[in-house]
Amino acid sequence: MTNLAWTRRHIISLADFSPTEYESVLQTALSFQGVLSRRTKKVPTLQGQVVANLFFEPSTRTRSSFELAAKRLSADTLNFSPGSSSLTKGETILDTAKTYLAMGTDLMVIRHQGSGVPATIAQEMDRLDAGVWVLNAGDGQHEHPSQALLDLLTICNSINPDQPTIEDLRGKKIAIIGDILHSRVARSNLWSLTACGAEVHLAAPPTLLPKAFADAFSTPLETEKGKALRQVFVHWQLAPALEDADFVMALRLQKERMTGHLLPSLREYHRQFGLTRDRLKACNPKVKVLHPGPTNRGVEITSDLMDDPQLSLVSKQVASGVAVRMALLYLMGGTRASTTLSPR
Amino acid sequence: MTNLAWTRRHIISLADFSPTEYESVLQTALSFQGVLSRRTKKVPTLQGQVVANLFFEPSTRTRSSFELAAKRLSADTLNFSPGSSSLTKGETILDTAKTYLAMGTDLMVIRHQGSGVPATIAQEMDRLDAGVWVLNAGDGQHEHPSQALLDLLTICNSINPDQPTIEDLRGKKIAIIGDILHSRVARSNLWSLTACGAEVHLAAPPTLLPKAFADAFSTPLETEKGKALRQVFVHWQLAPALEDADFVMALRLQKERMTGHLLPSLREYHRQFGLTRDRLKACNPKVKVLHPGPTNRGVEITSDLMDDPQLSLVSKQVASGVAVRMALLYLMGGTRASTTLSPR
Amino acid sequence: MTNLAWTRRHIISLADFSPTEYESVLQTALSFQGVLSRRTKKVPTLQGQVVANLFFEPSTRTRSSFELAAKRLSADTLNFSPGSSSLTKGETILDTAKTYLAMGTDLMVIRHQGSGVPATIAQEMDRLDAGVWVLNAGDGQHEHPSQALLDLLTICNSINPDQPTIEDLRGKKIAIIGDILHSRVARSNLWSLTACGAEVHLAAPPTLLPKAFADAFSTPLETEKGKALRQVFVHWQLAPALEDADFVMALRLQKERMTGHLLPSLREYHRQFGLTRDRLKACNPKVKVLHPGPTNRGVEITSDLMDDPQLSLVSKQVASGVAVRMALLYLMGGTRASTTLSPR
Repeated sequence: MTNLAWTRRHIISLADFSPTEYESVLQTALSFQGVLSRRTKKVPTLQGQVVANLFFEPSTRTRSSFELAAKRLSADTLNFSPGSSSLTKGETILDTAKTYLAMGTDLMVIRHQGSGVPATIAQEMDRLDAGVWVLNAGDGQHEHPSQALLDLLTICNSINPDQPTIEDLRGKKIAIIGDILHSRVARSNLWSLTACGAEVHLAAPPTLLPKAFADAFSTPLETEKGKALRQVFVHWQLAPALEDADFVMALRLQKERMTGHLLPSLREYHRQFGLTRDRLKACNPKVKVLHPGPTNRGVEITSDLMDDPQLSLVSKQVASGVAVRMALLYLMGGTRASTTLSPR
Repeated sequence: MTNLAWTRRHIISLADFSPTEYESVLQTALSFQGVLSRRTKKVPTLQGQVVANLFFEPSTRTRSSFELAAKRLSADTLNFSPGSSSLTKGETILDTAKTYLAMGTDLMVIRHQGSGVPATIAQEMDRLDAGVWVLNAGDGQHEHPSQALLDLLTICNSINPDQPTIEDLRGKKIAIIGDILHSRVARSNLWSLTACGAEVHLAAPPTLLPKAFADAFSTPLETEKGKALRQVFVHWQLAPALEDADFVMALRLQKERMTGHLLPSLREYHRQFGLTRDRLKACNPKVKVLHPGPTNRGVEITSDLMDDPQLSLVSKQVASGVAVRMALLYLMGGTRASTTLSPR
Repeated sequence: MTNLAWTRRHIISLADFSPTEYESVLQTALSFQGVLSRRTKKVPTLQGQVVANLFFEPSTRTRSSFELAAKRLSADTLNFSPGSSSLTKGETILDTAKTYLAMGTDLMVIRHQGSGVPATIAQEMDRLDAGVWVLNAGDGQHEHPSQALLDLLTICNSINPDQPTIEDLRGKKIAIIGDILHSRVARSNLWSLTACGAEVHLAAPPTLLPKAFADAFSTPLETEKGKALRQVFVHWQLAPALEDADFVMALRLQKERMTGHLLPSLREYHRQFGLTRDRLKACNPKVKVLHPGPTNRGVEITSDLMDDPQLSLVSKQVASGVAVRMALLYLMGGTRASTTLSPR
């Protein structure tokens, strides 16, 4: 399982990911899914390497998923959480990162509430010629690449279980419903899904989906037939987004948004944009539902829909997460090995 | 060290444990005690398996004990603690458990302040045909099976160091002193000790030991000579419980109980029910004292009694804990291997 | 890499460390630096051993550094942090330590806000004949031996990169600037640097450096030419300490000290004692700057000085930390193996 084509170092944003890169992540993750179905779910790939999980913002699922991915690649892991840290003593984020660098960290997985923090740390690592790559595990309202990549794997696996490829996405209609404006998950998914040829339909109240939102994603795509445009559509009602949709992704509605007077009430939101079994009847009959979790049951999605294995891909998303994160750490580790490391 | 007799999957309660099962746990734990006395205290039994420690209620000793047991079986461990988790974002407990399931957890060790939570999660795992077993690491005021099993190992080891067996308990008098009403440790011990033929004498103020308490444990026992009754006796004074006792177990007095006006004062409690060297003179001369920890020195038990290696088994209980938890994870892993796992 | 000369068990204070012991730590750490420059940075030395990191006081860098050191020696690690612990239930520190002992801990790394706690725990371990050694990872205002030893490695490596030895320190002038009075780092460094023959010059405002401070370190040193005195000098101004200094170590100014009215203001402190590129011109032209971190940029030291790889050894200190801690755990593990362990 070598991947000579992979040359990317840091993984900060999917904005400039190429179809070849998506395919590499997909195929590598599929190989690791094979490993995960064995009784001994471990490979020695990153033995003796250190993966530092620097989660400045609390997280259960993403942190555990990266930790497990690293352990299954036999890496040693270091966990940073802000509660018990030097940050409370006034240390800067860059100094924290440089401390973990100096300890001998090989790969850094970074989550921060501030958009751009992983990019800033990656720049600093490059400036220091550190030979350490940064993976953005969610930064503010910017991006969450590994979430979008696990969604990609989940969707392709669902369309074509035998031999999934990103080509399976071409022409598919994917609806993303909810707090688009504040969602790093939506942003990353917009890049990946459109790059693979899907049509993305966004639906939300206007306060959570400004008219100009989609403009940011109107960057040209290289295709076999020349340049193309990313297919992104904005709706302020649910119905046109759901009509004939192949996949529907509900976003988490962060209750703290309510204080910003962006929504009349959770009940009203659910009445207008909540996913129910009934509303899915307008979709493609084979429609599947995704949610990045954690869910507010009864707000973005009803409980019975969420728990219906015929309709919901939520558990498969979590499972895909470990395989995709193994793939990302593996691919990053591969480019790292081929660089000349400066002594630190 | 195979154990063909073991068929139990989840370990939630000791209410229906059979003498054969107690003996299996005891003998398996004794084998692991042998491993623990070697310089390299590790076996490859659970290599590549994932043990998730989901501790919704904070804990030092039980969590560390399970973590160490899992590591010594070469499992990978995932730790969940409520502070930094999605629970604060409104996720349900079942969704948290399902997330860890989807990540590829093999065994779940669950502690929760609510009685019945591990059982509920176990039912959900079965409903999903997940092939994942749940171990109750303490739920509310219900049960704490691994604590009672480590007490069993400690007591049998104390009676018969050369070749301990649960038969050693037959006819022994065991006193349990303290906040019986709210104690999951007492409940689990009542099932195990009586099933192995010991007489259990409970002593506490009436507010912490209602008259009808023992009735719950008057379920029939199968013995070689036919049915028998579990031997449980209730006392509202210390003296009759201690008289000729072979073992005395003090329970932790949770200071927060005081707010419920269940006790006049800690000093008064100690005067009436605190264990002292002097009071133990009424016991069997070979009497030993147990305490599940953490202790309130000077309340349930005096400091000099707690620290006397001739009288106190407290450190041996902690040591037994690692061996018993290795045994439980090992036995559960064994039944798991023989099931057909559904792909997740 | 055996070290027959090493006989010390607990590492609590550097007050009685001999030059031979400093040299042993230095040379062992240098060997591990070789390991750390390999791609697989792991050795099986402590496989199956348990290192418990009992950090009663929060810490990022020291805890991570010890954890990584232990993992690279292939030990299993147990982490204790006060937040989620039995301490909140009223357990004593000694009971916590004895619990980790009973679980099978081999080496204990202890940090506590109270001076003397690691020594007390070490005494208790000896009283119990536990065969477990304690390493002081920082206790109150007393000592922080592993920090001073990593400073020693960093300084010797800087003087003589090819073949560092503690002899390189002889006659060197080292300035330590800042809150000397409350600094465990300063105390440990005073023992180590003077024992290796360096002159230590302390500079701070009188409130942070009482006149009699240096007296505590006027213990005689054994040298080849007979007894000598430790060379410690006290200054209440920065200039005489910096003059011709070979190394300058800035200490962290803990902002909470301000509440004690020990300083007029941070700005005033920086004006009088802050390290700047300009002020270093009075030093030896090859001067290097150290700081134990985390730094208050712009208070003890300017940002551009801190980040100048020609002047600052801060990152090298962090890197040295992992190698030195591997060395300490390795040396302690070696004396442990040769003792007869009492069954626990």
